[in-house]
Amino acid sequence: MNGNERALARELRWAGHVGAHAAIVDATSNEGEGGDVRVARVILMNIDALTHTKVWVRVLGASGDAATDEDAHARWRTTDEACGRRSNVYALLHVVAAPIGREWWERWIGERVGACALSVRAFVKNARGFPVLPKEAQAMVRDMFRRNIQIMLTDWNGAPDGCARETIAPGDVAGDEGRVGVDSAHPMRLYWEYLVYLFRGVEPASEQALAEAPYRDYLQAPLQPLMDNLESVTYETFEKDASKYIQYEEAVRCALLDLVPEGDEGSVMVVGAGRGPLVRASLRASERANRNIKVCAVEKNPNAVVTLQHLVAKEGWGDRVQIFPGDMRTCAADVRVDVLVSELLGSFGDNELSPECLDGAQRFLKPTGVSVPQSYESFVAPIAAAKLHDAVVSYKDLKSIETPYVVKFHRVHHIAEPKSVWEFEHPNNAARIDNERYARVEWSSEELGSASSTLHGFAAYFDATLYDGPAGCVRCSIHPHNHTLGPTGELMFSWFPMFFPIQTPVYIDRRGASPTKIEFYIWRRVDAHKMWYEWTIAKPVQGHIHNPNGRSYWIGL
Amino acid sequence: MNGNERALARELRWAGHVGAHAAIVDATSNEGEGGDVRVARVILMNIDALTHTKVWVRVLGASGDAATDEDAHARWRTTDEACGRRSNVYALLHVVAAPIGREWWERWIGERVGACALSVRAFVKNARGFPVLPKEAQAMVRDMFRRNIQIMLTDWNGAPDGCARETIAPGDVAGDEGRVGVDSAHPMRLYWEYLVYLFRGVEPASEQALAEAPYRDYLQAPLQPLMDNLESVTYETFEKDASKYIQYEEAVRCALLDLVPEGDEGSVMVVGAGRGPLVRASLRASERANRNIKVCAVEKNPNAVVTLQHLVAKEGWGDRVQIFPGDMRTCAADVRVDVLVSELLGSFGDNELSPECLDGAQRFLKPTGVSVPQSYESFVAPIAAAKLHDAVVSYKDLKSIETPYVVKFHRVHHIAEPKSVWEFEHPNNAARIDNERYARVEWSSEELGSASSTLHGFAAYFDATLYDGPAGCVRCSIHPHNHTLGPTGELMFSWFPMFFPIQTPVYIDRRGASPTKIEFYIWRRVDAHKMWYEWTIAKPVQGHIHNPNGRSYWIGL
Repeated sequence: MNGNERALARELRWAGHVGAHAAIVDATSNEGEGGDVRVARVILMNIDALTHTKVWVRVLGASGDAATDEDAHARWRTTDEACGRRSNVYALLHVVAAPIGREWWERWIGERVGACALSVRAFVKNARGFPVLPKEAQAMVRDMFRRNIQIMLTDWNGAPDGCARETIAPGDVAGDEGRVGVDSAHPMRLYWEYLVYLFRGVEPASEQALAEAPYRDYLQAPLQPLMDNLESVTYETFEKDASKYIQYEEAVRCALLDLVPEGDEGSVMVVGAGRGPLVRASLRASERANRNIKVCAVEKNPNAVVTLQHLVAKEGWGDRVQIFPGDMRTCAADVRVDVLVSELLGSFGDNELSPECLDGAQRFLKPTGVSVPQSYESFVAPIAAAKLHDAVVSYKDLKSIETPYVVKFHRVHHIAEPKSVWEFEHPNNAARIDNERYARVEWSSEELGSASSTLHGFAAYFDATLYDGPAGCVRCSIHPHNHTLGPTGELMFSWFPMFFPIQTPVYIDRRGASPTKIEFYIWRRVDAHKMWYEWTIAKPVQGHIHNPNGRSYWIGL
Repeated sequence: MNGNERALARELRWAGHVGAHAAIVDATSNEGEGGDVRVARVILMNIDALTHTKVWVRVLGASGDAATDEDAHARWRTTDEACGRRSNVYALLHVVAAPIGREWWERWIGERVGACALSVRAFVKNARGFPVLPKEAQAMVRDMFRRNIQIMLTDWNGAPDGCARETIAPGDVAGDEGRVGVDSAHPMRLYWEYLVYLFRGVEPASEQALAEAPYRDYLQAPLQPLMDNLESVTYETFEKDASKYIQYEEAVRCALLDLVPEGDEGSVMVVGAGRGPLVRASLRASERANRNIKVCAVEKNPNAVVTLQHLVAKEGWGDRVQIFPGDMRTCAADVRVDVLVSELLGSFGDNELSPECLDGAQRFLKPTGVSVPQSYESFVAPIAAAKLHDAVVSYKDLKSIETPYVVKFHRVHHIAEPKSVWEFEHPNNAARIDNERYARVEWSSEELGSASSTLHGFAAYFDATLYDGPAGCVRCSIHPHNHTLGPTGELMFSWFPMFFPIQTPVYIDRRGASPTKIEFYIWRRVDAHKMWYEWTIAKPVQGHIHNPNGRSYWIGL
């Protein structure tokens, strides 16, 4: 160890001793060849002694120059990888200029960022002489507020020695209104007030956003919808989302209009009726379509059947609703219906076995009958999501790395747009139904943008067509470009997206002249007892095939 | 799964059922995008059912064309990585032409190769019309024989359908001598006879090579020379190597000539005398230099001391040899000697604590005294060594990945030349002795050659100067370019090299236009109780720093 390294080690241990929240290590000026790796080693050497103290590695988060920004990101990648991606080593983004574009700061959302230090140098003066942020910097700061990334003000000017400070001459700042509670003489007061103003401008969290807050970046293990029976509270959560049932009501209404001649009686079967929300939606659709219907409700969960039977009496459904307890794939019911309604979709469309269940239930359809949903398509997108990857790795086993999770994305950056992988249609009239699927998806250099980023895995979404016919087309989607909205314009919230992790994060290096690609493979596989996915990346580097034979994760049939 | 995938799965399971030695899977003609990954998935899907059957993935090991060779190697990398580097999935090298150069086939030595299938197409006719191999193919085949890689003859001609065969018309081959035991009518007989001829041309293994055979590619955990006492059989092994003691004798002879005036009595201290080989060498040196000497023998192992005391009587050393039981760093002995002789070097020079021990023993030297060895330098080289890496990974823990091993290299390919990392000199007269070291070593694109390969870790060597003075310079080295030879020209065998693994093998891809570098960092660290190394790669990709704070491996002081 040389003198600098010894000094850094001493400072880190001191920070740990006094219980500092974070020790800031400067990666903006590690001079000489190999400086970043050497600094990383000193961090690693002392990290176990820093039980309560985080390490914040200061990098230039926005310098106003693409090459400098890329260099800063690359140095963070070096530090993070050399430290073995330790979860208490963070980037501290030092912003000394307006970001040159959205992708140049958004990529940092997917990294392990401790805080954003905003230099007074990043500010400009407005017409009245007050310090304000340029537009792209405003967007960045607002986004950091939304994502709960701490913003700091600093007068450090980014000079290599790490100590030089901006001079803020008293004459530089506009008039002082001597507000109470703020030290009016403090040279940074106006900068601080501007940030407060920006913070106040961030739209307040909706009730729904507040309800979802605890789920942000929280990995949920996939449901086992066939093997387990849902609890009442889970139904409660599902039923809360008005937007979903509005879509279903509209889809059934259109289907009835197209399939049932005026004056005739139509028939609807709800498979997986649960506590009855789709029965209700179907009855409402019947009224609005001016078609009388009989509803058959099939439900395998005996506890939910009790609630359904209670509802028949309570809501006066009488003989309009008939209940069939049992598994839709096997239960006996001598009926043929016009419309088969189900809400079996998972975040990735088919991941909760909708194809297998509906294949089993389609025997109840008339030859002219339709399924609601009619079809659903699955999408994937490459994402930077250090926080999610850290969480996956913290389980310390291969099983967890080879599991896709349902998760409310928060500190997640989309490296490229979602692409379609496959589709299912119902009813499936193929002579031999094959619900296995395979897809290879590629994002070209052009689709990956200009800024380098880190690939931690893939986001997964569905986009479903509930019904498409002469009377109308009704969709239900969590695809970011096409997300179904509720009556008051809020996003439908019944489904969070899914996250397919990859074992080793990959640096998507956009600095060189050679083209970079991301290539992703995914398989849907089914045997007599279970369904599972297998996946891998093949570009820019070949990974191992995750979850072969469903060794780590599967959904029981 | 499509029809081809189903057919392949069926064949693999059949091979397993009949207990075939290996099932050959064709990766020379996986048509369509993503074919290699899809084939890998089918392999992976069935691999656990193949308990006794290996999978041999057929690739074009030598096609006569650089781009085709590179493509074949890249496809093998894809298959191997997609399969998660499973140890029962091998490359089967299909050779249809003379290799275009040494590095184009040598890189395969470092991959997991099951066999080499030599196509009759790779042969040419000599003047008498007999099939022979071109020179580079001969070199390759001879090397494969030496490394125990199975050679097969095949008339498959490399055509994409995997079945087309070369036509070997009877008229194509020269006269038939009807030898007994060989089917003289077989069209491949002459090819086979030529291979037998090549095999016979391979120099027979020396006695030493035979003795070393069980150690080939066998990972030996590092010794704990200070914490443990060696067993007699270990001394026995060490003492077998005449070449080493010839070097020591010569070094001591030169030192005595330079330091002890004719007629004076010299003094030699052997520290770590063991069962006395260096005492013997010193006495022989004394005779040859015509200088009388007194020898002090320091030894901490009480069991070895018994042998030493016995030797004093048995060999009639009388008062010429005095024994000091104890640790050279602490034992009491009121002597000052001309020459301090030790054999504490490890494969990497300093890895068995020679610096720390000699620093402790140098108080016994006169101000004019010298140490034998005087200095030693450590070297590292990037290597492809799938077999070693597989062995490291088979331990299934981080500890094993972060340990350097002593190993007799066999299926190892040097990707580039060794480079120096650091040096130690004795005696060390610095006011404050610092035996910590740091080195950053880089191999440029030019130094990495033209053929792509796989980096599994680093080979480590030492090159020592036992003595350098007016009377002569005596070296002792296992550096491949400078390996000390014994009296009959055989390699000194006391030290096998070391292997520093890296956690994730890296594809050194030489296909693109952009330059590729390998950058390696290594630290030697010492605290009050132990010495250890830390290491990482930083290019072409950043790895984690291995063994921080000696968490996985250390040598006790």
